[in-house]
Amino acid sequence: MERIPILRVGELLLVTIQVDMHDRLVMRLQDDLTESIVANRSKGVLIDISALDIVDSFIGRMINNTAAMARVLDAQTVVVGMQPAVAITLVELGLSLQGVQTALNVEKGMALLAKRTSRK
Amino acid sequence: MERIPILRVGELLLVTIQVDMHDRLVMRLQDDLTESIVANRSKGVLIDISALDIVDSFIGRMINNTAAMARVLDAQTVVVGMQPAVAITLVELGLSLQGVQTALNVEKGMALLAKRTSRK
Repeated sequence: MERIPILRVGELLLVTIQVDMHDRLVMRLQDDLTESIVANRSKGVLIDISALDIVDSFIGRMINNTAAMARVLDAQTVVVGMQPAVAITLVELGLSLQGVQTALNVEKGMALLAKRTSRK
Repeated sequence: MERIPILRVGELLLVTIQVDMHDRLVMRLQDDLTESIVANRSKGVLIDISALDIVDSFIGRMINNTAAMARVLDAQTVVVGMQPAVAITLVELGLSLQGVQTALNVEKGMALLAKRTSRK
């Protein structure tokens, strides 16, 4: 199970982070995601982190970098399902996810992406 | 990360299996899922197993039981993203997932659930 699945939901891509991330897994996810964005001409990526109880600077940077990659491919990233403790840790680590949109849950994230991509 | 997130996507619930399942995790998933079905009045559950390279009879029974629980709560279950090797193994194990619908990917699963729930 050395791969994080990327699910196509309508025009969006949905990634659920459930497992401990390590370098190789992150690189594979970023490879798969950028390929999926191009193949499906996706305009939006939802990253669900509701399963994460704790984060460290590695995960924070991973999310930042993945969003930056999506952005240069003209797709917007919304991080959803962040737990309160994770928000506290991210800010305390100095990673305030600038340039990354967040939403409470998948539904709200989809609505946000639909609004933002239709406005463009 | 001892919890499998259940994502609400429109009227459906989406569960992505990415980690090795064990008894406690399965029980927690079934608890969470049945509660979510009731709380959201969901008519459909999508279980994505595209991250699973291998299955054993434990996972096969888990899927069967979870679908049966959803059914008695008036929700239909569709298993999506099954890899070819997994299909072979399931049949060889004698677990042909009777009573469980399958679809190639999340999109097709959603379409199937939309058709089936509107017909009722």
